[in-house]
Amino acid sequence: MILTVTLNAALDLTYRVPHLVPHASHRVREVTERPGGKGLNVARVLGALGFRTTVTGFVGGETGRVLRALLAANAEAETGKEGAEGPAGGGTPRVTDALVQVAGRTRRTVGVVDETTGDTTQLNEPGPHITPEEWDGFLTVYRELLGRGPAAVALCGSLPPGVPVGAYATLVREARTARIPVLLDTSGEPLRRGLAARPDIVKPNAEELAGITGTAEPLRAARAAQRRGAHAVAASLGADGMLLVAQDGAWSAAVPERLAGNPTGAGDSAVAGLLSGLAEDLPWPDRLARAVALSAATVRSPVAGEFDEATYAQLLPSVRVRKAETP
Amino acid sequence: MILTVTLNAALDLTYRVPHLVPHASHRVREVTERPGGKGLNVARVLGALGFRTTVTGFVGGETGRVLRALLAANAEAETGKEGAEGPAGGGTPRVTDALVQVAGRTRRTVGVVDETTGDTTQLNEPGPHITPEEWDGFLTVYRELLGRGPAAVALCGSLPPGVPVGAYATLVREARTARIPVLLDTSGEPLRRGLAARPDIVKPNAEELAGITGTAEPLRAARAAQRRGAHAVAASLGADGMLLVAQDGAWSAAVPERLAGNPTGAGDSAVAGLLSGLAEDLPWPDRLARAVALSAATVRSPVAGEFDEATYAQLLPSVRVRKAETP
Repeated sequence: MILTVTLNAALDLTYRVPHLVPHASHRVREVTERPGGKGLNVARVLGALGFRTTVTGFVGGETGRVLRALLAANAEAETGKEGAEGPAGGGTPRVTDALVQVAGRTRRTVGVVDETTGDTTQLNEPGPHITPEEWDGFLTVYRELLGRGPAAVALCGSLPPGVPVGAYATLVREARTARIPVLLDTSGEPLRRGLAARPDIVKPNAEELAGITGTAEPLRAARAAQRRGAHAVAASLGADGMLLVAQDGAWSAAVPERLAGNPTGAGDSAVAGLLSGLAEDLPWPDRLARAVALSAATVRSPVAGEFDEATYAQLLPSVRVRKAETP
Repeated sequence: MILTVTLNAALDLTYRVPHLVPHASHRVREVTERPGGKGLNVARVLGALGFRTTVTGFVGGETGRVLRALLAANAEAETGKEGAEGPAGGGTPRVTDALVQVAGRTRRTVGVVDETTGDTTQLNEPGPHITPEEWDGFLTVYRELLGRGPAAVALCGSLPPGVPVGAYATLVREARTARIPVLLDTSGEPLRRGLAARPDIVKPNAEELAGITGTAEPLRAARAAQRRGAHAVAASLGADGMLLVAQDGAWSAAVPERLAGNPTGAGDSAVAGLLSGLAEDLPWPDRLARAVALSAATVRSPVAGEFDEATYAQLLPSVRVRKAETP
């Protein structure tokens, strides 16, 4: 089992409109609702790859109720699948809900897809306020989940109001104490603090990496982030693929051709790729190849945030992994 | 009691963002949720004026549950008010929930307020699909509510999918059979069909009126709508105030000065003004003055769709009502 943590889970709404014009009134042609927040996206990709995943974090209110119902419905759909392949086997739900109920309301995000331009405009509600008691309650659940011996744990996304800014540092330390490999995917001060707790992997994008290191050149910045505490730094560089700096080497990887498409969720798919490789104890270059292929298959998918399985299978062998050299 | 019907009720969300830029990602600074759909807005204004109102229409899903909870919370807040004035008296909830539960999910509307420009961009979800059985169930409830002898009934807004296009014609006929004065506020084909059933008042805006009559000149168009069946036509003309054509005369009314502000809900406030005057059997010019003053007090309110009570009290005596002449 792989554990993913989403402290600021969301109910993701996608609205399709013919053309978004500020100050106008629009009829939404199609509404899609799905569980959102980085860790829940990572779990969905891992589930599609055949891995059993447990999701935790905070959930509350009517929006939280919808989120949990959608998770349960997805799990039921997966259980019903014939001849499921991969490590989870058939007949078992691949995503288990271990979210912690809070008094506040789970936030919504609204992605408005302009059918004329293909662009998405994103509106993200603030998360619910978490009380100190709720944070303590979460820590108890988290320790209990670590005690079940997950193959890896991923800590994903922003912090809702009320959660201490050092939250990820605490969660990284707990995982390391339990000897569970831990990946951190966040930004700003929570990332800066989390780094100091020595996570096994951090997965910033180029902008987040530059933000915490003050260095725009990715390899230099990744090495700087490593010096600040991360055992390995996997930086996603958009269309340029990914860069990985580990204890025993540094590699860059990309698909042979630049892909057009929607980058929503590409970073979460990359995290799923890294985690799946970590869970199977693959060498770093193979983990990186998975992350890059999954990320590219997500950009190419017609549905935002989903990855295209056929595209993934086709892209994986074509990913070029090269030793990276200090510039 | 005044009855308002909102077949396509909504949970209205207002998002405040610093500046809306298509294709960008936005942090929503503030989220407001409230019961929406024209008939529910009319009921809120009537409640603030001190009238007891019963609301009906369709409601369903988690969004419907939130809508009903907000209605109940508002009713409780009203009940708690000291020294409530007006026909409802104190100690009684002014808006009573008689909504009909359906299997589908109540739609959301999202109004995105750009704090830089002050503009609102509106995103309206489609309504839930109503089955023939649900429509029949509604008709039973509607007849029962008419049997309680409301002072007036208002039929407001668009039709959700599945409801027959002649729905308002049916509801107008039922009200007339029960000898309850009926006001219709809708557009397009539902308005065209509803007119033929001879409602007491229709309240189109200039555009809706032109759409069904093919005449852009408001007085000519109002007379044309009257010939098609309405006993009285009250047309809202935006900043130009309102025009009313009844059996015994025609009047136009406006506030002395043009007002800047947000026109959201101004039409619903006008309907509330007309209904309150109808319930108290005021002469037409007085009803029109109320409608115009409430509408203007809504445009001037800092909160979209609410009316400012002090502005209303100040504007009411200043409204100029004039006999309208055929051009």
